[in-house]
Order: sequence, then C-alpha cells, then structure tokens
Amino acid sequence: MGDMVGTPTVIVDADVLDRNIAAMAAAMAAKGVDLRPHAKTHKIVEIAHKQIKAGAVGLSVATIGEAEVFADAGIDDLFIAYPLWLTRSSAARLAALAERVDVSFGIDSAAAAVTAARLLGDAVSRVEVVIEVDSGHHRTGVLIDDVVDVANAAADAGLRVSGVFTFPGHSYGPDAQVPAATQEATTLRDAADLLTEAGFRVDVRSGGSTPSALLSDADVLTEARPGVYVFGDAQQWELGRIEPDDIALTVLATVVSRHDGPANRRIVLDSGSKVLGSDRPGWTTGFARLRDHPDARVTALSEHHATVEFPKRAALPALGSRIRVVPNHVCPVLNLVDDVAVARGGLVVGRWTVAARGRNS
Amino acid sequence: MGDMVGTPTVIVDADVLDRNIAAMAAAMAAKGVDLRPHAKTHKIVEIAHKQIKAGAVGLSVATIGEAEVFADAGIDDLFIAYPLWLTRSSAARLAALAERVDVSFGIDSAAAAVTAARLLGDAVSRVEVVIEVDSGHHRTGVLIDDVVDVANAAADAGLRVSGVFTFPGHSYGPDAQVPAATQEATTLRDAADLLTEAGFRVDVRSGGSTPSALLSDADVLTEARPGVYVFGDAQQWELGRIEPDDIALTVLATVVSRHDGPANRRIVLDSGSKVLGSDRPGWTTGFARLRDHPDARVTALSEHHATVEFPKRAALPALGSRIRVVPNHVCPVLNLVDDVAVARGGLVVGRWTVAARGRNS
Repeated sequence: MGDMVGTPTVIVDADVLDRNIAAMAAAMAAKGVDLRPHAKTHKIVEIAHKQIKAGAVGLSVATIGEAEVFADAGIDDLFIAYPLWLTRSSAARLAALAERVDVSFGIDSAAAAVTAARLLGDAVSRVEVVIEVDSGHHRTGVLIDDVVDVANAAADAGLRVSGVFTFPGHSYGPDAQVPAATQEATTLRDAADLLTEAGFRVDVRSGGSTPSALLSDADVLTEARPGVYVFGDAQQWELGRIEPDDIALTVLATVVSRHDGPANRRIVLDSGSKVLGSDRPGWTTGFARLRDHPDARVTALSEHHATVEFPKRAALPALGSRIRVVPNHVCPVLNLVDDVAVARGGLVVGRWTVAARGRNS
Repeated sequence: MGDMVGTPTVIVDADVLDRNIAAMAAAMAAKGVDLRPHAKTHKIVEIAHKQIKAGAVGLSVATIGEAEVFADAGIDDLFIAYPLWLTRSSAARLAALAERVDVSFGIDSAAAAVTAARLLGDAVSRVEVVIEVDSGHHRTGVLIDDVVDVANAAADAGLRVSGVFTFPGHSYGPDAQVPAATQEATTLRDAADLLTEAGFRVDVRSGGSTPSALLSDADVLTEARPGVYVFGDAQQWELGRIEPDDIALTVLATVVSRHDGPANRRIVLDSGSKVLGSDRPGWTTGFARLRDHPDARVTALSEHHATVEFPKRAALPALGSRIRVVPNHVCPVLNLVDDVAVARGGLVVGRWTVAARGRNS
C-alpha cells in the first residue's frame, strides 16, 4: 500500500480488526458476561456496527456528543460511562437523546444527581443512572462507604439507579491485571450487596478494561466495557496481552531524516504526536513501537517528528522508506484524524470517517 | 463566560493574544531580526493575519497541508520548516503551491534533495530550499561537517539553496535557554560561513524557539521562528519565560468529581488529554496547570479526566465549578479541536475555526 497514501496515515487492518472483535465477543459469551465495548477507542460507526453484529449488547461512550453520533448511526443502547455534570444545554441534549434510544450515565456524587434530576425535568424518567465506584484506580468513582448515600440521593431526586460500574484503570501496568481484576470484582460485589441491602434492585455490575476483561469475574460482573481490544496498541503489546500480529491499527510513516554517525545514530519519522498522541506511562519502553522492528525504540516525540533509535548492529531503514508505527495508546490517535485508511490483504480498500472525533462534550 | 459555553472548551483571550503578538514583533524589530512565526502553534487564519499585520515577514509551517491553508488565506510567503521527503503526489501539491506564493522548505540529506528535484520537475525553479542543521537538539538536521555536501547535492540537482535553519529545541528545559541560544548562533554562523566559502550566497540564517527567540544573536540570525509565544503555556510558565497573566489560551473545564477524604483528596476535571494533549517533559511539575490555583497540580491525565491535587490546607473547588486549565504544551491542543472560543474583557465574543487542524501532511 506504500505509495497509494500519503504519510502519516492511520491504517486499520480490517482482517485483524474482525478477528479481534470476534475473539472478544466469543470470550465474553463463553463467560456469560455481556459485552458493551467502549466506543471512545474507535469513534467509528462501521466498527460499532461490527461490534453489535458480533453480539455486543450496546456501546459505552464517554460523552453526550459521542452518544449522539452512535444514536444517529442506529445504535439504540448507550451507556455514557462518565460522571456527567449536567448544565441546562447538556441536559436538553441528553433528554432529546433519551427520546430515541436507551441511555444511562454515570453518577459519583449526590450533588451531580440532584443537579441532573433538576435539569432533566420530565426526562428524568427516560434515563437510568449507574453509580461509579472506585475499585483502586483513584480517578472518579465513590468509595464503597459512600455508594448507598449517593444512590439514595439519586433515587430521592427521581433518578432510576440501575446498578454500579467501575473502571479498573490500574490494570495498566506490568503484573497489575490479576490484582486489578480481583479488586474490581470485590468492589462491584460489595457495592451491589450494599445497594441490595438498602432496597435497590441492582441489574448492572459493569467493569472491564482491555487488560482485565478476559479476567472478569463472571460471578460478579454482568457486563464488561473493554475498548482498546479492537485495535491493540503498544501498551497491550508491552503488557503481554497481545502479539504484534494482533495489532489492527498502525500509522504508516516515512523516514524523513537519517543519521548514521557513531555517536548520533537515529532515524526520524514524520509520525509525530500529531498522529500518535504522546501518552507515555513510565513502564513503557518508548513513545511508540515499530511493528516490523521490535528492537527499535521511539526515544523522543514532538509534534511532527518521531525519533527512533536502533540497536548497535542493526541496519537503519533507508531515507524515504515507509514504516508501520504502533502507537502506545490507540484511543487518542482516533481523536486526531478525520478518517482512517482501511486495508484488507495488504491493500487499501477504502476509508472510514472517524465520526465521533472531537465530540469532546 | 461560565454558562455560555460547554466544557471542555478552548478559550483564547484576544486581548492577551494581541499583546503577545505586539510584544514579540516589537522585540524582534528592535533586534533587527525578521519574525517568521511558526503557525503550527495556532493553525488559525485570523491569528496569522494579526502576525503579518504586526510585521511578520511570512509564516513558518510544518507541512504542505498547513502551507495550503495559509496560502488560501492570502499569506504569500511560507517556509515549510521541515525536511520534506517528497512523493509524486506531495511534489505536485508543492509545485501548485509555488505557482501562487513564495515557498521554501527544509532539506537535511542529499537523497531528499535529489528526490525532491526529480519529482518537482520544472517547478524546481519556483521553490527554494534551506538546509537544516543540528545545533544540539539532535532531532532532524545535518551536522555541521555535512552541510556543504548536502547543499552541493541540492544545487547539483537544480534546487536553489537560500541558506540554513535550525531549531534549538533543547532550549526547552530549566536554565537551558542561554546555552541553546549560544549553540544556535554558533551553528548557524559556522554553517553559513562554510556555505559562503563553498560559493553559496547565504540569505537565510533562521533559528528561534519561543524560549530562545528573545536571546537570538542578531549578528547571526536573519530571522526567528517562535510559535508558542502567541498563547504561552504551562511549559513557558514553568520555564519562567512568562507570567500567568500573559497566557492567552486556557481550557475551560468543569469539576465533575470531588473527593475530600484524608488519604484521597482530589478533584477531577473533564479536560482530559482529548483537549489538553498529554505532553509531559520530565522537568514539568504535572500534566497541566490551573491558572487561578497555582499551587494545584494535575497529577494524572486520561482521555476524559484530569486529576488535580491541592495542598493540604487548600479548599477544593466545588463540584460543577468551572476552572481555567493551562495546557503544558499548547500546540497539540489546537490539533484536537475544530474551533476555539474568542474572549475579550472576559466575554465570549465569537469563535475562530482551527483551519489547519489535522493537516498532518
């Protein structure tokens, strides 16, 4: 596909994508856990339809804007897995959305619940809320001790509470998946038990990140919300969750600069942070990986430049040659480009629009 | 401007912007160094026109796509400050561009020069090339020893060589500005001297980042290419180059989650990396800063969440309150949003389209 597209270009290998979608769907079906993939990863309508066709019960999204895009595309069950703080205008959008699709959203404070109920007015009966609990990631989510108070506040305000959710984001780290999946299950079970004791009917116990989804405790979780699994990325590769052959999204880049001196040995690619994003957790080995050069490391990244170093004896790729780069974290990549090239059997066969790109609120 | 816009929203304070544009223009005029601002920072036509009106001789851009946008807007002198590796299609675009505006671009290898000349064909006479030299940042750019070889290759291939440029990116670091500006001047002077000795007429000696622009050696540099100065960002703040009052771009964010336990004390804002980007050099104190809470630190950042910690005794902002966030690095922010809100005197007075957003090639 070398010369048919400019660089940098995001390329989705649709054969690998289809395989990843089928594999996660089969694994969750075998467990008996519903799959509600997080669509913030891809933001692409064509991929959402593939996920639903493979058996997903609906989608998770992060914003009302993302929900609107997927509702427009005919997806009729959407969970905004985020503790929304509504305003008059966002409440009006949410109410309009709830007229045409099933919508639920996250709550992690009594104040947010009261505000939401007040602004939603009559639409309050058309939405459900899910209480977010903190299972150890310490981002959003209430501590277990507060879950009943927040659920009571929501119910008193007129909102229907359907259950609890958590994001075990601390599963992103070497050897962190098993403990994070255990904490996730314990937290969801304890939170659900407390709500049940307090008189709530708990239909939803939702968890799951890509690193932890396959470890989800099927005795506790009713659904899992992995996102990255459709594409894979260098983080998943370095965590040992996937092999390079399972990576469905790469960035095609050109070697624009090459330096082969003894103290000064590197190439520079045109795939800067403008297309790779610049996520770099401390445990990763660089800012991205090269699919076909596993020993190379992206040692620096600026907006238009990715600096790559190679082992001492390895030959440096030629100037002008094209390289497949694997982003560290794939989600931000889709928020940077308006469309992606779609490849099958090594040939570009079309383009998909990133329909929910930039739908940040 | 609180309730009039959703969050997260990028807000440009036009009064501060105008002041920053005027100050840099005056400083460069006083030095006698031409100002050719880097437009990759803002990607906004309205801001480009302000820069030209204030005396800029033209713009620097990073891609042919950015050059096309600003040429369409009537800017007629564009330097693509990047070592382009041309293909048939990008060469055709560059040739078309050169028919309507003055265009120059970077070269840092003989191979790129030969390829460019071959693909440009007759258009070779309508462009100029500037040799990129490495002044210590070790990204793109040839070492001083190679500058004459590359210039000769370009000239032999039929390209007009107008001079040399460098990017002192290593000026981004505590106490790094003075040494980087010195290396920049030394490298440009030595490279220009070598080219002059080799028979070239050197019209361009171009350097300058925002941290180093005011330190530019006017005896050497003919022009400077700062970009970030129009807005400022948390990096410039932490480097001591600007005061918080000089920051023209902030992200308005909402406190969506608040936790005030003794061991668990934080707020979470909806301004994740989807709008702030995730650049975080090691010397910065966090992933972003809060303009009105200088003691707070953004300790974690994910796509939709910015986790903020406050000093022990400081009160935490209320749930639902709105906070002005200063991105670490402002350039990636403009590549994430389709438009920005423009404020004057604290009121939103309009919106500007980020016309060159996503013009990655």
